[in-house]
Amino acid sequence: MATLKDIAERTGVSVNTVSLALRGSPRVGQSTRERILESARALDYTPNHAAQSLVTRRNMTVGLLLTDMTSPVLTQVAQKLEIELKAKGYVTLLAASNGDGEEEERALATFRSRQVDGVLVYPNHRRHLDGIRRLAASGMPVILLAGKEVEGLDVVTIDEQHGSALAARHLIDLGHRRIGLIDSERATGNAEKIDGYRQALAEAGIEVDPALIVGPGGHGISQGYAAMAHLLTLPDPPTAVLASTDRIAMGGLRWCQENGIDVPTDVSVFGYDNVEYAEAAAPPLSSVNYPAEQIAQAAAELMLDRINTSADATKRIVLKPDLVIRSSTAGR
Amino acid sequence: MATLKDIAERTGVSVNTVSLALRGSPRVGQSTRERILESARALDYTPNHAAQSLVTRRNMTVGLLLTDMTSPVLTQVAQKLEIELKAKGYVTLLAASNGDGEEEERALATFRSRQVDGVLVYPNHRRHLDGIRRLAASGMPVILLAGKEVEGLDVVTIDEQHGSALAARHLIDLGHRRIGLIDSERATGNAEKIDGYRQALAEAGIEVDPALIVGPGGHGISQGYAAMAHLLTLPDPPTAVLASTDRIAMGGLRWCQENGIDVPTDVSVFGYDNVEYAEAAAPPLSSVNYPAEQIAQAAAELMLDRINTSADATKRIVLKPDLVIRSSTAGR
Repeated sequence: MATLKDIAERTGVSVNTVSLALRGSPRVGQSTRERILESARALDYTPNHAAQSLVTRRNMTVGLLLTDMTSPVLTQVAQKLEIELKAKGYVTLLAASNGDGEEEERALATFRSRQVDGVLVYPNHRRHLDGIRRLAASGMPVILLAGKEVEGLDVVTIDEQHGSALAARHLIDLGHRRIGLIDSERATGNAEKIDGYRQALAEAGIEVDPALIVGPGGHGISQGYAAMAHLLTLPDPPTAVLASTDRIAMGGLRWCQENGIDVPTDVSVFGYDNVEYAEAAAPPLSSVNYPAEQIAQAAAELMLDRINTSADATKRIVLKPDLVIRSSTAGR
Repeated sequence: MATLKDIAERTGVSVNTVSLALRGSPRVGQSTRERILESARALDYTPNHAAQSLVTRRNMTVGLLLTDMTSPVLTQVAQKLEIELKAKGYVTLLAASNGDGEEEERALATFRSRQVDGVLVYPNHRRHLDGIRRLAASGMPVILLAGKEVEGLDVVTIDEQHGSALAARHLIDLGHRRIGLIDSERATGNAEKIDGYRQALAEAGIEVDPALIVGPGGHGISQGYAAMAHLLTLPDPPTAVLASTDRIAMGGLRWCQENGIDVPTDVSVFGYDNVEYAEAAAPPLSSVNYPAEQIAQAAAELMLDRINTSADATKRIVLKPDLVIRSSTAGR
């Protein structure tokens, strides 16, 4: 690989002059600069990022930790984040924790040893943030992309409880009283969505039936399929089901289809995230709209702030989701 | 951030001893090593990756360039690649070209300036590989993840032409003669899929009707919707449609639903990639199975080979896809 010395030799100037010219210093005259740039191109010179970052103490790299690289809503955010950060000269170091606490710890350690300039995290467990807190305490800018009751950390997220309450209220307004919820157990982290469901039912004077809350044990289509099978074969099945993700809802729709249960005539189904596939589901899925682009923009902006200016009070940016009503939900 | 010097001061040994101990040198006695490691933990010492990589000339980083970060099949490969590479101590630097040649060039330049140890690429245009070839010519290990007629570059891919021929043959065996194809124009890259379609039709003595080949102008659900609308409102519409991705097929299914066209009674629809959503489509989609896990494994293995051993003849690893037949296809 070509070095500054190679360019200097070819151009007949000092290494220092080459260095100044490549950094755009006005101390190098126009014609010299042009000759230097021409030599750099001819030699296919590429700046050595590792050497530069030791000097500048800036790596121009942001770590992004996803829980699941195949989640359509997370990859939508990742796509937008990569575009936003790239526009500011940053590259994205990607890792996935795949729902595993130890993988999360290792990814954070890797980000740290790579001295990324900041870390964006979808945490695995919203109540177990020790590793993330330690990273932030070490001076690393860290922004969480989910979580409600988080103190001392920057958060950019949607109000998941609000979204889930909106969806449940919509189902209640349609006349439903037995509303199933497919969501994880409290410990593994969608407490906000469960709280929103409970809140909407309480407001309407409907008692929560624990039999109607089923943990899918995952966020894929197959888990939604199994959870819907469980709910709709109960002795007193729900007339509407709220799923914690669209993927889970789509698995549920699939079970209904295979078992001759018409959606929404026999059961209403509500998704969460409004991913691309929600519109193409059968029937098209009503869903809580996760504003991926706005989340990505706000997170990238806050990250650049954190990298470029000294620590401020922690910020919580919480966007309110709205509903997209399609044809998977109907009145009783 | 703690340095070797801080550990040395705390432990009462020389910086050199600390350095040797942290690298596991047998020249440092057991008890000294333990005291040093204890100090390192107490000071929350993290090795400086940039400084290390200047010494080792190994960055333990692989660049992964996707065309679209929201493509379910690409993110499935990305997920598996990240896991495979992580197991070998490598992190993944992610970039997306978003279907733009200039973005691709910039991403490759970034990978180069970051001195990644190797680059895995889904190319934007399979006939315009100049930037990728230049990167490989500079000595960087580069592996393409798509493309048929590529010389001088390592490739790990599926035989896309074979997959598309298999699907077309299946439709022909079901009695279809007018088979539509939703695929991009030759220039933008799915020539292999178009060739497979042509091949199967030629074998069956069916003349290709250019009116039945429509370029969707993108790989999303909305493009599939529009392309299906175009095909099924032709004066002499096809009785079966082969889509170049499942997302396109799902958009097509959606148009059929909205327009009262029964799949597969009125028209058979075949997808490509067998993504998670194919099974949950309405009706469940017959599809060409893209073996994401095997592709990721083979690509990661070859990449480690390329990084660790000196250049060998270029390798082409081409997996043969098979079909998954579900209920979106039926006889005439």
